[in-house]
Amino acid sequence: MFDVTRYAAAADAIVEAGRFLYQRGWSPATSSNYSARIDDQHIAITVSGRHKGKLGAGDVMVVDLDGHPVQSDCRSSAETLLHTVLYDVFPDVGAVLHTHSVKATVLSRLLPAGQPLVLEGYELQKAFSGVQTHESVLSVPVFDNTQDIEALARDTKAWFADHPDQPGYLIRGHGLYTWGKTMADCLRHVEAFEFLFECELETMRVRP
Amino acid sequence: MFDVTRYAAAADAIVEAGRFLYQRGWSPATSSNYSARIDDQHIAITVSGRHKGKLGAGDVMVVDLDGHPVQSDCRSSAETLLHTVLYDVFPDVGAVLHTHSVKATVLSRLLPAGQPLVLEGYELQKAFSGVQTHESVLSVPVFDNTQDIEALARDTKAWFADHPDQPGYLIRGHGLYTWGKTMADCLRHVEAFEFLFECELETMRVRP
Amino acid sequence: MFDVTRYAAAADAIVEAGRFLYQRGWSPATSSNYSARIDDQHIAITVSGRHKGKLGAGDVMVVDLDGHPVQSDCRSSAETLLHTVLYDVFPDVGAVLHTHSVKATVLSRLLPAGQPLVLEGYELQKAFSGVQTHESVLSVPVFDNTQDIEALARDTKAWFADHPDQPGYLIRGHGLYTWGKTMADCLRHVEAFEFLFECELETMRVRP
Amino acid sequence: MFDVTRYAAAADAIVEAGRFLYQRGWSPATSSNYSARIDDQHIAITVSGRHKGKLGAGDVMVVDLDGHPVQSDCRSSAETLLHTVLYDVFPDVGAVLHTHSVKATVLSRLLPAGQPLVLEGYELQKAFSGVQTHESVLSVPVFDNTQDIEALARDTKAWFADHPDQPGYLIRGHGLYTWGKTMADCLRHVEAFEFLFECELETMRVRP
Repeated sequence: MFDVTRYAAAADAIVEAGRFLYQRGWSPATSSNYSARIDDQHIAITVSGRHKGKLGAGDVMVVDLDGHPVQSDCRSSAETLLHTVLYDVFPDVGAVLHTHSVKATVLSRLLPAGQPLVLEGYELQKAFSGVQTHESVLSVPVFDNTQDIEALARDTKAWFADHPDQPGYLIRGHGLYTWGKTMADCLRHVEAFEFLFECELETMRVRP
Repeated sequence: MFDVTRYAAAADAIVEAGRFLYQRGWSPATSSNYSARIDDQHIAITVSGRHKGKLGAGDVMVVDLDGHPVQSDCRSSAETLLHTVLYDVFPDVGAVLHTHSVKATVLSRLLPAGQPLVLEGYELQKAFSGVQTHESVLSVPVFDNTQDIEALARDTKAWFADHPDQPGYLIRGHGLYTWGKTMADCLRHVEAFEFLFECELETMRVRP
Repeated sequence: MFDVTRYAAAADAIVEAGRFLYQRGWSPATSSNYSARIDDQHIAITVSGRHKGKLGAGDVMVVDLDGHPVQSDCRSSAETLLHTVLYDVFPDVGAVLHTHSVKATVLSRLLPAGQPLVLEGYELQKAFSGVQTHESVLSVPVFDNTQDIEALARDTKAWFADHPDQPGYLIRGHGLYTWGKTMADCLRHVEAFEFLFECELETMRVRP
Repeated sequence: MFDVTRYAAAADAIVEAGRFLYQRGWSPATSSNYSARIDDQHIAITVSGRHKGKLGAGDVMVVDLDGHPVQSDCRSSAETLLHTVLYDVFPDVGAVLHTHSVKATVLSRLLPAGQPLVLEGYELQKAFSGVQTHESVLSVPVFDNTQDIEALARDTKAWFADHPDQPGYLIRGHGLYTWGKTMADCLRHVEAFEFLFECELETMRVRP
């Protein structure tokens, strides 16, 4: 059993995040899925296939950490396990956002297989929690896209074990996963990643 | 005779679609035309030459499946037959949107004559009705532009016969036609196509 | 003496045009100037140096066809003569818009000296008054920029004499002048030009 | 002691500037900092780490010209000294804006070390206070990024001494500093710089 008020607050944060992310063009055509922690066993998550700019009551459901619906007949995103594995591994993660921007899609397709996106020398890297200087190096892995989400969840879990401080990862031709202690932190991470993706692509345009 | 309430609902969906599509920059300078099915003999369609971001009562008329005005002195788009042929061939089509974006215009001009736009490996392909995996291939034909709309309507009809499951086509230097069971489906298709057009162009910028 | 109600209507159209053009990014940093005809001797025109997205009462003045202020202590744009020459030559011109977009600025700098911008094969060319087909050719001259506005006004006047049906011209590194019978026509021309400028630049990015 | 009404007016100008600059995408992910002069000893400045599109009461504090908080327990931006040095050197500076746009970030990284950004032949250069013609040359220095703000403040101070009429500078991979007599002047400078940065990048895309 979960606290209903905590669910309502989590759902509200998700609805508001959706309006922002859709308006920015990062969650088009009913793509993307968002979640927020309710407690150590439950998370609120978007129902599959909904318009992310028009989320309302009835578009956010509850799942447990195994990704099973709780008190709901709705179906959550096919990618629910990519969310729950984060809440399971990191007790201080409070929100997870998965977005589908043009920049994340194109950049992840352009990088050679097996090569991460390496970000360095950008002042905006300091927008990621815990980063104090632009001189640090942020290495963003690119996982191959797959419809086998269980396998991808295992792969990301193995990566988290080796890189507990990284703020996000890409899936090739698909999009970004990022997380944070609060929804505000998580939204700041999306903005920072999108800014850096655009910087990288803009640089590649000019220096192809 | 058509049901007036069904006409009003169709017209309302068209007006709202226009506000969205104009605001996104996909229907500039009074270009584009939109339609929605009223019944098996009638469709609601935009009056020729109106500002698509400011549609109101009086900017949506009724035509039959031959493209003739019904209970109206207005003139519908010169491209009305490209709409009616879709409603005629596909009984489950409920809405058709024709848009004029920069991306669709440029991409359709850059492709060699006779070559379709081939989209593959994008997670967002799943936004098209019936597509289950990014591993499918979406082949979007590019018809040459012409002011002879009857001939183009015949050409598209022949293409539909061979490709009943495709969600849209391009006209070179002109724009996109896409359709769906409902206006919401159709708008999702426009968003997905525009996203994919931008991905393709962004890739061509970096890998010219 | 001019009709005050006609002045008020012209000023209102200018204020509304400014909100639109600024919001689109085509009149940044107090650049640009707009005008609308009051009668065969008077035009309403923006006061020099005002924020084009925040025009209000007091930001639109009256000048005669020689560019002299009428019933006003304000100073109109330094480029007033580029407006008045249009109203003088073409009795059916009702509005003139001069905008400063990034696309117009860059494109006009990239074209070799003496070479016009040639637009052909775009369906959106039909947005210009009088154009019936995408197969027509639209040739947009690029005048060299100068602070000698009297000389530039004479040059444009000579060009009008040879090209009475053209809808606009560029000034290198500076911006676009376009006109129409009504403000709505003129705004449609701006949108169509900006669309075509973006198409041309996007093509140059991919095929440098 | 500072005049509280003057503080409130300065804070209000900062809050409004933040809404504009965030909405334009020039202050993402809690980056940027803004200030406005209260009197010859005090300036209002944003508190560190706040969301620039949602500034409100409590997000603007007061510092003296040495950058020390006045009547406040809050912490101002780590870059406070880059603001105060401007107010100290130029008695007529009334506002300073520091923004983090993609264009400023990328352009400043692309320029060879030690080479300024040279802007010439753009009509929009006239948007900078005191510039009368597009034929002038605007040379914008690019300082290397550093977390040692005291050293950078000294470097910029030395540069001001040699270039008292310049309206702004870049920090590599970081962003823009610009200033003006009023907040309106300063915002016009941001708009003009961003326009010119985009023009330069667009040109580099086409002529790499």
